[in-house]
Formats: sequence, C-alpha cells, structure tokens
Amino acid sequence: MALIVQKYGGTSVGSPDRIKNVAKRVARWKAMGHDVVVVPSAMSGETNRLIALAKEIMPSPDARELDVIAATGEQVTIGLLAMAIMQEGCKAKSYTGPQVRVLTDSTFTKARILQIDDERIRQDLAEGNVVVVAGFQGADENGNITTLGRGGSDTSAVALAAALKADECQIYTDVDGVYTTDPRIVPEAKKLDTITFEEMLEMASLGSKVLQIRSVEFAGKYKVKLRVLSSFTDEGEGTLITVEEDKNMEQPIISGIAFNRDEAKLTVLGVPDRPGIAYQILGPIADANIDVDMIIQNVGHDGTTDFSFTVNRGEFNKALGVLESVKSHIGAREIVGDNKICKVSAVGVGMRSHPGVASQMFRALAEEGINIQMISTSEIKISVVIDEKYLELAVRVLHKTFGLDQA
Amino acid sequence: MALIVQKYGGTSVGSPDRIKNVAKRVARWKAMGHDVVVVPSAMSGETNRLIALAKEIMPSPDARELDVIAATGEQVTIGLLAMAIMQEGCKAKSYTGPQVRVLTDSTFTKARILQIDDERIRQDLAEGNVVVVAGFQGADENGNITTLGRGGSDTSAVALAAALKADECQIYTDVDGVYTTDPRIVPEAKKLDTITFEEMLEMASLGSKVLQIRSVEFAGKYKVKLRVLSSFTDEGEGTLITVEEDKNMEQPIISGIAFNRDEAKLTVLGVPDRPGIAYQILGPIADANIDVDMIIQNVGHDGTTDFSFTVNRGEFNKALGVLESVKSHIGAREIVGDNKICKVSAVGVGMRSHPGVASQMFRALAEEGINIQMISTSEIKISVVIDEKYLELAVRVLHKTFGLDQA
Repeated sequence: MALIVQKYGGTSVGSPDRIKNVAKRVARWKAMGHDVVVVPSAMSGETNRLIALAKEIMPSPDARELDVIAATGEQVTIGLLAMAIMQEGCKAKSYTGPQVRVLTDSTFTKARILQIDDERIRQDLAEGNVVVVAGFQGADENGNITTLGRGGSDTSAVALAAALKADECQIYTDVDGVYTTDPRIVPEAKKLDTITFEEMLEMASLGSKVLQIRSVEFAGKYKVKLRVLSSFTDEGEGTLITVEEDKNMEQPIISGIAFNRDEAKLTVLGVPDRPGIAYQILGPIADANIDVDMIIQNVGHDGTTDFSFTVNRGEFNKALGVLESVKSHIGAREIVGDNKICKVSAVGVGMRSHPGVASQMFRALAEEGINIQMISTSEIKISVVIDEKYLELAVRVLHKTFGLDQA
Repeated sequence: MALIVQKYGGTSVGSPDRIKNVAKRVARWKAMGHDVVVVPSAMSGETNRLIALAKEIMPSPDARELDVIAATGEQVTIGLLAMAIMQEGCKAKSYTGPQVRVLTDSTFTKARILQIDDERIRQDLAEGNVVVVAGFQGADENGNITTLGRGGSDTSAVALAAALKADECQIYTDVDGVYTTDPRIVPEAKKLDTITFEEMLEMASLGSKVLQIRSVEFAGKYKVKLRVLSSFTDEGEGTLITVEEDKNMEQPIISGIAFNRDEAKLTVLGVPDRPGIAYQILGPIADANIDVDMIIQNVGHDGTTDFSFTVNRGEFNKALGVLESVKSHIGAREIVGDNKICKVSAVGVGMRSHPGVASQMFRALAEEGINIQMISTSEIKISVVIDEKYLELAVRVLHKTFGLDQA
C-alpha cells in the first residue's frame, strides 16, 4: 500500500462528466489499496472568467482581493470532485488550502508555500477517506487568502507530497508524458520514459507547459518522485522525473527542444558603463514584482553600454513603464522593446560531456537564415531568442539536428 | 460618527455595474464619517448555478461538500465589492465568514451562528477600512465551511451588528421598506414607517421575503436596530423595525397581510388517539431535518384521530416519504398530502387589545366563498390555509377589510 498524491489540471476537471471520470480513476487507485490525496485545479476557463469579472470592477485588480476571488475556482472543484468520489462508493472529504494550513508568504497572486500542516489529512486518510485538497491556494500567517500564480496547483501537489512523504506524486494532464518537443509542431516528437529534474526544470522554465517550474524545483529539493501522466487514457506509464541520470542507458546528448512564445525583450540603450548599472535597471523591475528571464549586457564602447533582458509578454508594458520612469535617473539614451520574439532551447544533461553542441545548434539555425538576437547558456541548456515568426521552423530544425525524431 | 452594518442582497450586487453603485453608496456613508461594515450576498443567480452544478455530480448533494461549493458565491462578491469600494477612493478589505471566525454549529446547509470574533474587524475599522464580510457562511469548531441556508446573509449582517454593537443594521433590498402587503397583488398597499420585531417576525415567517426570519429573531434578541431600505433609490427612510410599539401613535389593529405560496400540507389519517402519537409522527420528520410550520390535530373519534401539518413545498416529497416509511409503525390508516395550498395571515400587535379580529377575518373570506382548510393563531397573528388559487383574492379582501388601503 502506497500513499499517492494525484494532481488533475483544469482540462481534466473541465466538466461534470470529466470530474466523474477523474473520480473513477481515483476510486481505482483506492481499490488497489492505496491512500490517495487529490489536488484539482479550477475547471478550465473558470480562473479566466473570475479574473475578467474582477477587471470589470478594477482594471488593475487589487492583488489581495483578486486572490479572494480567484481562490473560489478550485474551491468549487474540490466540492464537486469529493461528491463524485462518493458516488464511486469511496469516503471523501475536501479542504481548501487555508483549511489544511497551506502556509504561504504574503505575495498575493504569486505566493510561495512555506509549510503545510499534514495532521488533518493524515487523520482523514487513516479513517479511509480520499482527501481532496484545493490546489493553487493557501493563506499567509494572518489568515489572508493567497494564490500561488498560474500553474500553482502543480506546486500544491508536490508540496503536499513532500509534507506527507508520499510514495509518488502523479501529475495528470492532457498529454501522456513529456515529449522531446511539442508534437503539434513536430509530429515525429517522441515521449520520454524518464527525464532528470534538471532537464525538466529547464524544459518547464522554457515553456514546456507540462509542469509548472516551481513544482519541479520543489520536487527536486524534497526528493518527491514525480510522474506525468494523461488523464484521458488509461495506458502508459507517463514520464518519470528522476533525480539521477540513468547510467545504464545510452544517454542522448539532447533530451528535448523547448520553446516559449510568451516572451518580450527590453533593451536599455546607451547607459553609462559603470558598476551598479545592472542593479539600477533591474532593481526597480524587481520592486514592481516583474520576473526577469534572460539578461544580456554587451561589452561597452564610448563609455556606454546596452543592456537587454526578457520578461513575460504579459508584463511587457508594465516593464516598459518602469524603465521609462527610471530612464533619466540611470542616464540611458533610449528604451526599446520587442514583444514579437520567442525563445527556443536545446536541453540535455548529455551536453555536459559533449562539447560542440552550441556550434551545432547555431549552424543549423544559420542554414535556415534565422537570425539569433540573444544567446543564453547553462550547463545543460542553450537558449536563443529569435523573431517569433521563425519559431516552428527553428524547433523542427533543431529536433532533427539532434536526432530526436529517431526511435 | 456611527458604526453601520449594511447588507446588500443578490439583486443589489447582481452585476459589476450594480456592485459599483453599492460601492458609491458605501463611500457616501464613509464620507459622512461613519464606520461601515458591508455584508453582501452572492450575485443573483450564482447560488442556484452552483447548486445545479453540484446536482449534476450528485443528485442529492453531500451537505458538507455542497457548503464548500455554495460558499464561493459570496466569496466572489466580497472581493469584487472591496475593489469597487477602493475605486471610490476608500480603503477596503474583504473577509470570508471563516476568516473572521463566524463560528457556527455543524448543521451543514442550515448552520446557526454561535459566535463572532470582532477583533480583526474592529482593528481594520480603526485603520480606516471599510470591511466587507461574506454573508451566508461561517465555519464550525473544526474549521469546516458551513452555510446558513437561504437568506442567511441577513442573519450574518444582524449577527455582525450585534457582535460589533453597531448603531444600526441596514438591510438593502429591492423594495424600499416593509409594506402592508405585496404591492404586486394589492396596488394600494402602503409602506410602513415602523413595525415591531414581533410583527416583522410573523410577516417574515409567513413569506414576506423582505427579511429572513432568523435575522429578525437575532435582531430582537440582541436589540439590534434594524432598518429595511431600497438599494435602488436614494430616497426614503425605509422601514425601521422597533423593539417597542409606538405608544404615541394611533395603533392600527392589523399592520399587514402576509402570505406564503411555498407551503404543502400533509395529513396522517386514522392514527390511534393515544399519548405520544404527535411525537411518533413528527420525530422522524425532525430527524430528516424537515422544518414543520403549522400543526393541527383534530379531536378524535372511534379511538383514532387525524393529524395535519405543513412543510416547505420543496420538502413535500421528502416528508411524504418519511411518513410512508413510518405509517405501519404508527398504525395510521392513510397518508394524504396536498401541495396546492397557500397560507394567508393577518398580523398586528393591535389584535392583543381588540377581540373579534378572527371572526372579522373568517367572515370576509366566507363572503368570497373561500374555504378555510386549517387555522392557526398566535397572540399577534391569525393564519389560514386555503387553496392556492384563492391567494390573491384572499389577500385583497383582507387588506381592504382591515382598512390597510387607507392613508
């Protein structure tokens, strides 16, 4: 008998019928003798509906109040899912995040989980209940309702699995695992049986929407065994996300090609090339709670330099506004931005031991006439920013270049 | 400077524009220097939508889980209303029932408020906030989410006013006060400037939908000054619900004619006329959590008697089922029911000192050929059950008979 935490995304619980299907699956795991904790998202479309309603009242909604509203999406789902599980003949109880003391910091709309009190859940499990816990939400130390930001339900599930020392955390989604790249762009994309946490982290951070990045960090940190599965088929083992590379297998150099359309680039032109300038530019951006992704500073000339970074496309205008407001203070000549860009990356732990991957990648893009605007590298990833119109072409070319379409 | 609790019903917050109008009104009271606590209901239609969703999963929804789902309706409104109040330039903070520790018993879907912790609200008021508290909901001692049943937001508002020792509890609704009867049935109906708690209690329990009955009981018990007002006009003082009869005014004998279409009658025929039979019949009904309204037992003959009572029409089939299941145990000959009935009542503290009101009422109905099926009286009210097809006629006749259409 194992303790399993299962997370179901918005599409998997998008209608009463789909909720009933999830309940059937949960009941099967329960019938096998396992203890099951289920973490559902809001029904698909519901969070967007609630945010739109808030914006009708307040175009830039107050963050605290927005969380009060947004948290209701998951609250509806847990009640519905608990009832559906009862209909399958199991005992079930639902809890909101605040009810099981998912303690977070007070960064409304983007809160981070600090601690979870597992006592109540353990007691309910011991009494034979399936426990349904709302994802995406918690409460700060003053009891204010918080949400974890988009995709936060994955993080909720992994954090619960860590707190409960669960045997496995299963993330059910509308795909049956992690692929070498998006099959909608490259039909030859292959499902991976395993992927390392590091690779998954890079894939997730680069826009592979299978898992939310913080959940992968969390899982890696707390050694939670994480598996991605489809909620629409009963076949397959999905993709297991492992701590260690599999030493027994021939390790491919590159595991996958990730991409992210949701990026925008900002450049501060002609800033004085002096110490502290990066902080003067990015400090106000951080104060405005805007996440920065890539950061590039070119070598200066004439005593000035150009400074570029990328942000989530939804925060492009906000970031532009922040930069305009500090422009004269930092002595910049001009602020320019471009929100028609995308990022494409090759990811693989194999590149640690294989030099030349970067040049192979740049050559393949050059042969297709794709101009590279920015480059960023890590130990296991090479990312390039290019014009978004080349996205599909770049992904297909790189997928083929690194032999990912071979069985 | 006063402390005012304002409650707004579902129609008053039924759309973003209406929520903005409520916020403007709240801001005006705040600008006058008052401390304001606002208790909104769910947006009109929302609670029904949520219950329908639950029934798609589980035709007789689990009560605990239904409350988890239903409580989200008010939670959305408090966030929206707090933001709308901010847009009017006031500080505002919203709280769910559990957050401000509206402690209730554990009777899910029909919970009763036991206690409210006013500390957090007082602190927020002291800091200049308008405090928005979700009506209709609370939590039991184990932190389970509970709801107070239909119309429970009125009770929430009055309970908050009592806990905060507010100077006035204002119930904003879609009518501008309490009328001598429903103006849709009798166009000559007059608005009452004052009405006593006892009268209001009878009017409310009889189906005058202006105020929820438990809220009136609560207000009477804790001496909360209660006022009913329209949220759609800025004119008028509404109707003040007073503890004492106004000794200075010529007291009319009857204050109003109330009615209730939402009733059903059940009769147990030919039960042995022995002690304890009423308990044997109504015990199982109470165990099934069905509220009983009127109870009539006729004088027995041949050692048997007939026993009648009325319930909410929505619980008619459930009550019928309960009676059928105990029929042989109690030795009854037959169970009959009728859900095409209504109750019409004359209410007034004046009837205490004026004999003959009952006979005046029965004569007026007899002259119109309306058969009386059941009669029930209290010190300040006479109710009759009649065929529902005579409802409008009976109300008009009684309104005229008691001179309520005179200025």
